Amino acid sequence: MKKLIFNFKSNGLKKLKNSKHILGGKGANLAEMGRLGLPVPPGFIISTEACHLFYKNKKKLNSSLIKEINKELSLIEKESKKKFGDLKNPLLVSVRSGARVSMPGMMDTILNLGLNDQTVIALAKNTSNMRFAKDSYRRFIQMYSSVVMGVESYNFEELIENYKLTKGVLLDTDLDEDDWNNLIKDFKNLVKEKTKKEFPQNVKDQLIGAISAVFLSWESQRAKVYRRLNQIPNEWGTAVNVQSMVFGNMGSDCATGVVFTRNPSDGTKNIYGEYLINAQGEDVVAGTRTPQHITKKSRISSNDKKMSMEEAMPSVYKKLKKILLKLERHYKDMQDVEFTVENKILWMLQTRSGKRTAKSAVKIAVDMVKEKLISKKEAVLRLDPNSLDTLLHPTLDEKAKLHVIAKGLPASPGAASGKVVFTSDDAERLKSMMQNTILVRIETSPEDIHGMHAANGILTARGGMTSHAAVVARGMGRPCVSGSSEIEIDYEKKIFKTSNQVVKEGDLITIDGSTGRIIIGEIKTVKPEISGDFSKLMSWADSFRKLRVRTNSETPLDSKVARDFGAEGIGLCRTEHMFFDEERILSVRQMILSKSKDDRADALNKLLPHQRKDFFEIFKIMQGLPVTVRLLDPPLHEFLPKSQKEIQDVANTLKLTKNEIDGRITELHEQNPMLGHRGCRLGISFPEIYEMQCRAIFEALIELKRKKIKFAFPEIMIPLVSTEAEIKILKELVIATAKKVQNDNKTKIDFLVGTMIELPRAALKADDIAKHAEFFSFGTNDLTQTTFGLSRDDSGKFLNDYLENKIFDTDPFVSIDEGVRDLIDIATKKGKKQNKKIKLGICGEHGGDPKSIYLCSKIGLNYVSCSPYRVPIARLAAAQAELKK
Amino acid sequence: MKKLIFNFKSNGLKKLKNSKHILGGKGANLAEMGRLGLPVPPGFIISTEACHLFYKNKKKLNSSLIKEINKELSLIEKESKKKFGDLKNPLLVSVRSGARVSMPGMMDTILNLGLNDQTVIALAKNTSNMRFAKDSYRRFIQMYSSVVMGVESYNFEELIENYKLTKGVLLDTDLDEDDWNNLIKDFKNLVKEKTKKEFPQNVKDQLIGAISAVFLSWESQRAKVYRRLNQIPNEWGTAVNVQSMVFGNMGSDCATGVVFTRNPSDGTKNIYGEYLINAQGEDVVAGTRTPQHITKKSRISSNDKKMSMEEAMPSVYKKLKKILLKLERHYKDMQDVEFTVENKILWMLQTRSGKRTAKSAVKIAVDMVKEKLISKKEAVLRLDPNSLDTLLHPTLDEKAKLHVIAKGLPASPGAASGKVVFTSDDAERLKSMMQNTILVRIETSPEDIHGMHAANGILTARGGMTSHAAVVARGMGRPCVSGSSEIEIDYEKKIFKTSNQVVKEGDLITIDGSTGRIIIGEIKTVKPEISGDFSKLMSWADSFRKLRVRTNSETPLDSKVARDFGAEGIGLCRTEHMFFDEERILSVRQMILSKSKDDRADALNKLLPHQRKDFFEIFKIMQGLPVTVRLLDPPLHEFLPKSQKEIQDVANTLKLTKNEIDGRITELHEQNPMLGHRGCRLGISFPEIYEMQCRAIFEALIELKRKKIKFAFPEIMIPLVSTEAEIKILKELVIATAKKVQNDNKTKIDFLVGTMIELPRAALKADDIAKHAEFFSFGTNDLTQTTFGLSRDDSGKFLNDYLENKIFDTDPFVSIDEGVRDLIDIATKKGKKQNKKIKLGICGEHGGDPKSIYLCSKIGLNYVSCSPYRVPIARLAAAQAELKK
Repeated sequence: MKKLIFNFKSNGLKKLKNSKHILGGKGANLAEMGRLGLPVPPGFIISTEACHLFYKNKKKLNSSLIKEINKELSLIEKESKKKFGDLKNPLLVSVRSGARVSMPGMMDTILNLGLNDQTVIALAKNTSNMRFAKDSYRRFIQMYSSVVMGVESYNFEELIENYKLTKGVLLDTDLDEDDWNNLIKDFKNLVKEKTKKEFPQNVKDQLIGAISAVFLSWESQRAKVYRRLNQIPNEWGTAVNVQSMVFGNMGSDCATGVVFTRNPSDGTKNIYGEYLINAQGEDVVAGTRTPQHITKKSRISSNDKKMSMEEAMPSVYKKLKKILLKLERHYKDMQDVEFTVENKILWMLQTRSGKRTAKSAVKIAVDMVKEKLISKKEAVLRLDPNSLDTLLHPTLDEKAKLHVIAKGLPASPGAASGKVVFTSDDAERLKSMMQNTILVRIETSPEDIHGMHAANGILTARGGMTSHAAVVARGMGRPCVSGSSEIEIDYEKKIFKTSNQVVKEGDLITIDGSTGRIIIGEIKTVKPEISGDFSKLMSWADSFRKLRVRTNSETPLDSKVARDFGAEGIGLCRTEHMFFDEERILSVRQMILSKSKDDRADALNKLLPHQRKDFFEIFKIMQGLPVTVRLLDPPLHEFLPKSQKEIQDVANTLKLTKNEIDGRITELHEQNPMLGHRGCRLGISFPEIYEMQCRAIFEALIELKRKKIKFAFPEIMIPLVSTEAEIKILKELVIATAKKVQNDNKTKIDFLVGTMIELPRAALKADDIAKHAEFFSFGTNDLTQTTFGLSRDDSGKFLNDYLENKIFDTDPFVSIDEGVRDLIDIATKKGKKQNKKIKLGICGEHGGDPKSIYLCSKIGLNYVSCSPYRVPIARLAAAQAELKK
Repeated sequence: MKKLIFNFKSNGLKKLKNSKHILGGKGANLAEMGRLGLPVPPGFIISTEACHLFYKNKKKLNSSLIKEINKELSLIEKESKKKFGDLKNPLLVSVRSGARVSMPGMMDTILNLGLNDQTVIALAKNTSNMRFAKDSYRRFIQMYSSVVMGVESYNFEELIENYKLTKGVLLDTDLDEDDWNNLIKDFKNLVKEKTKKEFPQNVKDQLIGAISAVFLSWESQRAKVYRRLNQIPNEWGTAVNVQSMVFGNMGSDCATGVVFTRNPSDGTKNIYGEYLINAQGEDVVAGTRTPQHITKKSRISSNDKKMSMEEAMPSVYKKLKKILLKLERHYKDMQDVEFTVENKILWMLQTRSGKRTAKSAVKIAVDMVKEKLISKKEAVLRLDPNSLDTLLHPTLDEKAKLHVIAKGLPASPGAASGKVVFTSDDAERLKSMMQNTILVRIETSPEDIHGMHAANGILTARGGMTSHAAVVARGMGRPCVSGSSEIEIDYEKKIFKTSNQVVKEGDLITIDGSTGRIIIGEIKTVKPEISGDFSKLMSWADSFRKLRVRTNSETPLDSKVARDFGAEGIGLCRTEHMFFDEERILSVRQMILSKSKDDRADALNKLLPHQRKDFFEIFKIMQGLPVTVRLLDPPLHEFLPKSQKEIQDVANTLKLTKNEIDGRITELHEQNPMLGHRGCRLGISFPEIYEMQCRAIFEALIELKRKKIKFAFPEIMIPLVSTEAEIKILKELVIATAKKVQNDNKTKIDFLVGTMIELPRAALKADDIAKHAEFFSFGTNDLTQTTFGLSRDDSGKFLNDYLENKIFDTDPFVSIDEGVRDLIDIATKKGKKQNKKIKLGICGEHGGDPKSIYLCSKIGLNYVSCSPYRVPIARLAAAQAELKK
């Protein structure tokens, strides 16, 4: 039989591979401390595999496991010299969950287990503190009843409140041992009444109940939601840690504290933490008493009067300091440690890698390299690429005068200004008119994804740091202020109110996702300050990575930002984004709606100089680097006039009646525009459009040369190819156009022609297509849509059902799905077989997602392309991908 | 160097593999007759490879080829004892195209080449017929000038007409040798004037010009169109046959004729043909003289007075009869032969497998097996599965009184009645209301495909037997009458007129696609009469095939027809088609639009008995056979009320306001419904719908049992699955429902659960999906749409551009595309690897397409499923696929 239970000091632990998978994070670390000879209260771990068995066994612990638990319990008794349920020296234990990764507050914990009407007396005697013993007992009843027996905690709180009212006191501390005694009786009656059962006095029953409850809490609603939001697989399960209790509240030679080996917010190398004398662990967190500093230095620097631990308990502090050093050396990472001092004896209760801000993560990694604690490789591997996001976004110009009207939670970093809109559709509509927006919603749902994407920032009245809005905005790199209870939104009237301000649709506001501030008007932002440590770390990353990183950009501004962030070219320049500009849209509409070739040619002639200028500006910024330009892609009706005035304008230009224009618009309507007349299908039907775009590209290059600016290297990308013939025909068109421009200007032009692989057929027939393509760029947005037969625009209606039913572990539009991966793999193999020199990249939004970047590296692509602000993230992820190979 | 020229009697020919590929059909057969020792006028073949070289060499014959041509020419001279350009005994030749398959009338032919101002005199002398010689010369000038020199033929016809007017005569036969002499001068002047060149007198120049022209005619517009319509690859190219002329018009001991070895219209074993004494081949076809019978028997049976060839030229007839027997024995097929008798000498000019009606093809094949000429396998292989279509369609009940109002071309067999509609959208709209329609168009275009599909028959005012309407209708098995110039359509007024009748939109008419008749009113149709030969042939086919053939059907009527045609079950029963019934649609709408579970349950309860009855009827017909039932698939908004009255009805039922219903309709709107909330996604969101459908299936089974009817075997199909989780969750739902019904009725039910593979991801992850699926059915309609990212509804706008640019050789919705094939292949391999016993079938429209059926057989599917009338086609195609393995 598989070993399901492990003592902290068991020798078998050394040999365990993936010990965290089996023991959970907390258990593995306790056991590790045990092995290091550190003072850990005796205890044992019931493994995650026992959790799986528990669920298989109809959510019951089987008898052989219970037997083993009792065996382990007697080992604790031996080591602690206490006895479970003993009337003189009773052993009390804690029962805690311990998943592979920390899920703070999501699962259940029970302390002081082993107390009952008898043992509480012994505890009182041994601690000489009857009040403490009774208080502990009532806390245990409350905790156990709520976690194991399903009597909700507020019932007990109500009893306490009523008791205090009757007694006429305000604080819990005003209650004495008799009061707690009375309350214990009330508590037990309440349990009896609610559950028709007595509160268990048999300590072994208590233990079995508690262990089962911890296993069950893995499937609690909040745990499930947390896992979904944090992409933690349901299959992992949790371990359970059963450990002898130690008490930091048995007198003034007792204490309890939390300490980081370095400063988790700025990364400086100072012990950083808090402790309380004569207290239990929860008191440090609860905030009822103000904790004291650990070190003298930090006490002095914050001008605190209360003694630091260094001063109050110098010898214990010295011991602790030594242990901290040992732990950091051992784990080679900053540790977050919990300890308790029981009658001058130091006990280590937990150690784990400490959470830290991105800023401190960078500093700690670089410092540890300097200290020769870790290698550069390890430093690069240690950072979560996604966390860099917080370092890269523009922040508000603090010199600006800010009119802050409300605050909310700083849910996704960065600052953004824009017009207030209240619906996702409005955000999208305004985006198509090149206008910046802030999407203001009571809360967001998956149906708002497209609007969140279109908006420059998101503001919600409800929801916390892990609300839908917050999670999605962070993923997209959009600034977000969530859960601002200070604002009140009225969708009907299209306004939101603060206590003294009314903001209407269309008003300009600014949100600061790093601080949660909501500000009236448009505020200047400043570029993020990139620290020397950050640059150093990125340069290390660059030295390891092989995957190139480009950016998706079609404006000079974005291109500049991206190049400053280290982009090595543009991987996707969407030419149609330039079409929405007010100066041009009429000509675009003329081009689409004209029935005659002459009218179309006229429109294209008007557009040519605009496109040429666009390309010139972008090429200038990207000089020396490749720029992938995608020719016109979306269905034409996206550009159609909508308002009556717009329709009249086009009618006038084309000298047609409004009715004729209406007719043409109806003709262009499509059932499924995503699968309609778009991409290279437009190039086949209207070669003159692609010809104009190519001419603009080539003439821009010639102008660069004329102005003696270094060349950029255009890679002309034909979208939505599914057959060999399409790329063949359109490549010939590009080359013919190049020849014309070359002849007109007597200047040679260098360029590549390639295609987007964004349809399953293109991937399957990549060998045929590669005969004519010099590069492939995987358009994973559309490839995901067609592979799943799933429209991103329409999936909102059932995405929730799909996430709840665990049909999707992750939204396939965020991280590359494995079916899509298979197609990328097929296309890569077939493409390379046909054309060894073919360049391979990815330009879907997945190009900025670290998980997807690992995949691209594994498959062997040459580059990824992502939005400007994700360029450093991609650089780091690319390095990690290489190092993990 | 490769051999590019082949003499008819060259020995090298025997060794040629794929001789038709190199020599063309006509050349290969001439050479074959030469080898058999039959009297063939001497000549040679310039191969298709020379054609490729011609195009590579800038459309010129290269000098080494010309040298070879001259060499071959001298061999003809030697054998015929005539000399090319000789003033006494000039050799005249024909220059004809000869592609791999016959393309009648599509490419150019030149006769009497070698005539010029001198040789014409010699010809006159040798034939003692100056008028014939001059007529031949002027015909040659006309033909040559038009084919080689680009002077269109009507110019010459005009000259003749003017000449006759001047002379005051009506017929060509009224012109004598002098008249032709004058016209020859006029002809030559015309050529000079139009081309600035003299008509070539050098006979070798004539020959080179003619050969080049035949090669060029391969790329003529009409040839290209023909190839596209008949799916002949452009790469094949044509061969050229140069052959000594023989004359059937040199006197009364000359003749020319066309003869079939058996009767091509009913298949009886009688020589069947026509001849003319003292005539040229074209006279037989032209209809200026009425040809005479070949055999005495047929002359007598048709009560003809003019002597048959058997009587007029008994010895030549005897020789011919012997040759015909020899040819049929040699080719083991009915032959279509052309011959000429020149001064009592019989010359064979052509033999080829004769075209025949489907009826005669069946009889000939079965007879030849009886005659031991061919094996059963060969008989089965000999029939074109698609041709069976003409035998299978219902015909008009000839006992009915028919009010025929007009006629057109019999473009696609079968008879159909329905309401007249003038637009494809109307056809589709009425279909959704379960109404039969006849789509009436001036002509159709690819944009009408959906309407042609929705309509029961198609009637056009323009276009021939190979017009778009005709070709597409035949492919779909829809009856079609095309090119009825007797009707005049007015789209504006929505009527069509005949000389004495006005038919309005909505009027009932009937068309008979087998005869071209257009009839007022709805006429009863009778089931096609299936001959004994047909049944025999089909039973042979069944004995060879391994692929099972099922049908796509959701009505008792269709199911019955299909079972009579030999369907071995239902491969696709679309449950939603039953929802459109007037009695049910309100409940369906209630189900969709209700926001509460209770309202939805209420609607589902109303639908349950209807669905149960549907399934009962179908199961009863299909007793003993499998029936694949697909659960609800299309996006819900397809069922939504459209008219104000319909909306009000639903509002009343649901006790909601009209506004609320409007709101819900707007909510259900989708950008891309094809990729939206449909298929199993509905089952995930609204499990109660699928549960109702499963209950209906199971309860119908129980009712069968109760009524002691043999079971049918339902295979419950979950549509649009893309992930393992979807099929897993929904399979559990099906099984849970089955258990409930089993328990309620205490009866065991047998069924399978499987899925449609219609998304690329499903194919790629077929191994995961096969863990839960007992069968896969390839839904190639949607699989084609998603693989190409191409909406069938929207492709009309550019399909023409795609066919013209040769991007699609065949419409991928007609025959399975190779990219789609790759996915089917992947899914089959992965599915079988996971689950050896998995059943595999196809239920897209490709299931009735012989090309696609070959593919399915090759890939190793278990069955195909097609529309009822295509079942015999599929049976035959499946047998052929097996035999060709």
